[in-house]
Amino acid sequence: MKLASLKNGQRDGSLVVVDRKLTTCVGVPQIALTLQQAIETWGVAAPKLKAVYDQLNAGTAAGAGPFSPQRAESPLPRAFQFLDGSVYLSHMRKARKARGAEMPANFETEPLMYQAVSDGFIGPLDDMPLPTDELGVDMEAEVAVMVDDVPMGITADQAGKHIKLVMLLNDYTLRVTLDELPQWDGDKLNLPLISFVNGKRIGAPHAGKDMYFNYPQLIAHAARTRKLGAGTIIGAGTVANKDEAAGSSCIAELRANEEIENGKASTPFLKFGDRVRIEMLDEAGQTIFGAIDQKVVKA
Amino acid sequence: MKLASLKNGQRDGSLVVVDRKLTTCVGVPQIALTLQQAIETWGVAAPKLKAVYDQLNAGTAAGAGPFSPQRAESPLPRAFQFLDGSVYLSHMRKARKARGAEMPANFETEPLMYQAVSDGFIGPLDDMPLPTDELGVDMEAEVAVMVDDVPMGITADQAGKHIKLVMLLNDYTLRVTLDELPQWDGDKLNLPLISFVNGKRIGAPHAGKDMYFNYPQLIAHAARTRKLGAGTIIGAGTVANKDEAAGSSCIAELRANEEIENGKASTPFLKFGDRVRIEMLDEAGQTIFGAIDQKVVKA
Repeated sequence: MKLASLKNGQRDGSLVVVDRKLTTCVGVPQIALTLQQAIETWGVAAPKLKAVYDQLNAGTAAGAGPFSPQRAESPLPRAFQFLDGSVYLSHMRKARKARGAEMPANFETEPLMYQAVSDGFIGPLDDMPLPTDELGVDMEAEVAVMVDDVPMGITADQAGKHIKLVMLLNDYTLRVTLDELPQWDGDKLNLPLISFVNGKRIGAPHAGKDMYFNYPQLIAHAARTRKLGAGTIIGAGTVANKDEAAGSSCIAELRANEEIENGKASTPFLKFGDRVRIEMLDEAGQTIFGAIDQKVVKA
Repeated sequence: MKLASLKNGQRDGSLVVVDRKLTTCVGVPQIALTLQQAIETWGVAAPKLKAVYDQLNAGTAAGAGPFSPQRAESPLPRAFQFLDGSVYLSHMRKARKARGAEMPANFETEPLMYQAVSDGFIGPLDDMPLPTDELGVDMEAEVAVMVDDVPMGITADQAGKHIKLVMLLNDYTLRVTLDELPQWDGDKLNLPLISFVNGKRIGAPHAGKDMYFNYPQLIAHAARTRKLGAGTIIGAGTVANKDEAAGSSCIAELRANEEIENGKASTPFLKFGDRVRIEMLDEAGQTIFGAIDQKVVKA
């Protein structure tokens, strides 16, 4: 099942179901007005949404129309919580080396995770407005999951069942799903994540490889001393592989590689007018989430 | 004007207006169902809420009933953002000394601020459920503000006008207001914040003194490279004064004082069954926000 939120002039957008090929969609106000409402009532809402999805794929859904990614909000345009981990250790090592910092003492026993900004995500094709492009603007291509209500103290064994949706994320977010993904093994998503800057491919590291902690482990870590509200988004940090041939999901890492090889970084951080594209394709080359494609602009 | 949210079995509670003395309240579904809805439409909602508040104080509000703090949720039971600063430097110095850390290099030029948990606040008289009391459980008595939509890049000069509500907060939150407070000078709240552990007063530092950055400066700092969504809560960190006679708003600081004076800390962190009380009184001794009064319990 694939879900999106369309721009409607409201802060939370309007929930639509999108067909597998991302060509048609249909509003589902009779089930839930917003994705937040759907995730809060997932047990009841999910089977109804699935029925609409099946009709949509069969071409029989009443009221269906074309799906335009330009009209898409972030799947959840604002969230009560966004927790971002950093579990691809080769990324963490490079990012820290670049700024002369050591790895944290407990990096092998406890996932590094922080509370991230969640009060407003931009849409997958929206401009990225910034006050200046002199602050080392970077992208970070990630795979994130969304959970329903998670009780405090849950174990990693039990945490997986709270994962309801998967999405791509550019330290901002695109389109959402789960049962849809044969490449999802319950703990991680086994596909390369492809990143471009101004049309140039900068990397396609495999999101299922070299993941030191998986999503259920991240959820259990976050819920150790508190419960997590429905609609909490959990990222796993910038996707990176040990194999440098896989390329990078952010510019900081490219620059770290350049420093190590040439003594100085040559790839610039993002400037106004630069364009970032992040996408994941299935084995047949079909886009799964649709692309995040965003231009940096002056706010 | 004083606002509260009452427990109603929903995630966001129901908004009520409370009279100045905190004895009666009235629901306002015709204006806004929730505080989130009110803050998103503040320009329209505030004058209507104020009219109800005036009627309530005059004893003429239709449908008014007794206000029971036991039924109160946190004013905003969940928020899309909670940013917590640390602007009382004597607290930061002690907390860092206690763990052997240095002050950050730029502590005098940039406020220390972090993204805090906001997906679920407990009510002012609710139990504080924890999986264990072996993790150095502490309280932190703070004064926080709530803003409407804040544009990116706002200056501190302009940020103050976005502050709509003021509340007490125990790294968790209680009851909300603003024009109500003659002690609010536009930048900070000039009253002592009184904290108790198990009925013993541990301090009453003055929230308007020794505040190295004020609320508009914190807001401008947070909005430097992004806008802030309506309903964002901004804390200023644990209230602390240079004058140690004012006492403390958390246990970590008491322990730091004990270490410095006696070579070892004797005040224990919170255990199951311990009770925390945080309150602010006006010059006449009248409670302004009502008290936060919470017991630590096993989750």
